[in-house]
Amino acid sequence: MNTEVCKRFGIEFPLFAFSHCRDVVAAVTNAGGFGVLGAVAYTPERLEEELRWIDDHVNGRPYGVDVLVPGKIDKSAESGGGLDAMLAAIPEEHWTFLTGLFDKYDVPLPDFEKTKHSNARGGTQVTKKGATELIDVSLAHPIGLIASALGTPPPLMVEKAREAGVPVAALVGTSEHARRQVAAGADLIIAQGGEAGGHTGEISTMVLVPEVVDTVAPVPVLAAGGIATGRQMAAALALGASGVWCGSVWLTTEEAETSPAVKEKMLAATSRDTIRSRSRTGKPARQLRSAWTDEWEGPASPGPLGMPLQMIVAEGAMRQITKVAESGNPGARALANYFVGQCVGLMNTVKPARQVVYDMVEEFAGAVERLNAITEED
Amino acid sequence: MNTEVCKRFGIEFPLFAFSHCRDVVAAVTNAGGFGVLGAVAYTPERLEEELRWIDDHVNGRPYGVDVLVPGKIDKSAESGGGLDAMLAAIPEEHWTFLTGLFDKYDVPLPDFEKTKHSNARGGTQVTKKGATELIDVSLAHPIGLIASALGTPPPLMVEKAREAGVPVAALVGTSEHARRQVAAGADLIIAQGGEAGGHTGEISTMVLVPEVVDTVAPVPVLAAGGIATGRQMAAALALGASGVWCGSVWLTTEEAETSPAVKEKMLAATSRDTIRSRSRTGKPARQLRSAWTDEWEGPASPGPLGMPLQMIVAEGAMRQITKVAESGNPGARALANYFVGQCVGLMNTVKPARQVVYDMVEEFAGAVERLNAITEED
Repeated sequence: MNTEVCKRFGIEFPLFAFSHCRDVVAAVTNAGGFGVLGAVAYTPERLEEELRWIDDHVNGRPYGVDVLVPGKIDKSAESGGGLDAMLAAIPEEHWTFLTGLFDKYDVPLPDFEKTKHSNARGGTQVTKKGATELIDVSLAHPIGLIASALGTPPPLMVEKAREAGVPVAALVGTSEHARRQVAAGADLIIAQGGEAGGHTGEISTMVLVPEVVDTVAPVPVLAAGGIATGRQMAAALALGASGVWCGSVWLTTEEAETSPAVKEKMLAATSRDTIRSRSRTGKPARQLRSAWTDEWEGPASPGPLGMPLQMIVAEGAMRQITKVAESGNPGARALANYFVGQCVGLMNTVKPARQVVYDMVEEFAGAVERLNAITEED
Repeated sequence: MNTEVCKRFGIEFPLFAFSHCRDVVAAVTNAGGFGVLGAVAYTPERLEEELRWIDDHVNGRPYGVDVLVPGKIDKSAESGGGLDAMLAAIPEEHWTFLTGLFDKYDVPLPDFEKTKHSNARGGTQVTKKGATELIDVSLAHPIGLIASALGTPPPLMVEKAREAGVPVAALVGTSEHARRQVAAGADLIIAQGGEAGGHTGEISTMVLVPEVVDTVAPVPVLAAGGIATGRQMAAALALGASGVWCGSVWLTTEEAETSPAVKEKMLAATSRDTIRSRSRTGKPARQLRSAWTDEWEGPASPGPLGMPLQMIVAEGAMRQITKVAESGNPGARALANYFVGQCVGLMNTVKPARQVVYDMVEEFAGAVERLNAITEED
């Protein structure tokens, strides 16, 4: 396709794929799109391995990395007190609630004492220090984009990226945020509607994209949120976007890291089966509605903590739940969930990631032909 | 434009305009679109007058009527006990809360004793009996469409419309509803995303439209929710819709019935300034966020009642608030609001309704050209 973004990023289709799975990233890049690895779940050492693997599998084709640098996090995480300060900031009642939940759903308790330390390490990746380490690892690889998924990219990130000649992208949920991100140095804006999976606002893609495009022109804007098909990609470009950024659609691909029990839920889910909930990260994030999200909204819930404390509480628990769900435990299957957008209702078959790209591009062309037939004279 | 819907409904552009204002309906119809009058606010006598006026102003061009026939309403409204049964079902604490609200915001109290009777009459329009009267009045005019805005069109409505040779449309917020509506006899489905103004669900237009199109094919689908520009109209058609149904965009036109204080708020509002709230009708409806919606969500609120009881409580109060807001009363200006979608952020100038149609059509053509340039070979 013939777009500025294709020329600038050296790709055939203006289709960016966000995934935590290196196989998806490489497959999309190799199919002519642009794969972006979500780095937050990785330690710097592990990220280094993942990027080396990608380098070995894309033959110089462009890919990127996405880091989470939230503007506001719990003060214990920035106190310099490290893991222990964060763990000390988690009220006892949250561990009690969690223990009660495992009991109620008949899921064997994980060793929280053990996992809470490794999860607290995960929680440190979203601090400025943690994110900076991930940024340093990323920029040592031949990446074509570095994206900031929450909040304004910190000056240090922009400086380091500039030095390395790597464009900076930023996800936004409002046009005010977009203006701020461009002022902070973002070269590419991702306007993400409230129907998106993961951390998201409330303004829909249909409204947000034209607003943001008008606000930041001539900075290019990718549309995100709800996009899983070629018709939607055509709609996004009709709205004025220069390309699309898709996250959810890869979760049911052959390559995806998604656990089988959750993949099954996603294939069966309709667009009504997601909810914006703070129960996994402490910030509102769209995910499959499950007994987990219901219980955190329920009367016995102590309420989710802030980021990253809720991540520490939730992620060790969800790891155990997902593992136990695989063995068929019905309580664990009821609790299991994962971040996904409303387009989960359109994700009904398992395909290779490469095939998702080709199908989207083909459907895109069909949608443009249909629009042409409408404007043609009889 | 060259679409099935244009041929079938005898229009130039597949652009349907929902409005409570006859001037908007006539202006859109005369500009080549299809105006649809929202009938719920009118008594049968008043509706008769409005439709006669439209007949006199559209010179035989096609227009339609929209009625509200909710599936579920408060049982007092269907009890046969009429106005008195409905009024008796409203707890005293709701009137007390309202009185306190007027006091807090320093707005002169209306005569609730007097207005609650006329508002209860308004409440009866959403009962099966009330809606049937409106349907009878409508079908005696040369209308080209009758739409059901909430719930499945009742068999009687479908039968009467068939007899009169008038197609039936139905608004839906999920693909399950769409399937049910087609089974009940709807000839045209309006898939309305959660970003829409008025009664709305939670699935966004971007996701809902392709889902509903696939579910009910070959029944034509109009896209609604968030659409106020030609780029968005092109996006909707790219998604597979056969046309668009717009409501909010007319509220800031020259012709609109919108009160000046509310129009001012809408022109200044961003896409973040709306909320889905039950505080005006008893069912979740998107509207401007204001002190009114905040107070009904606040700690002193007794909670909104069901439909139509909340309409009776709210509409007399809002009429007074709107009236007093015109005189500059700051409390009334803080409380004043109206139903509108997230696209209120894109509504920044006052134009004639005719001009909105022409601007949308022109921008639509531009969006299609842009898409063509993308798919063309170098």
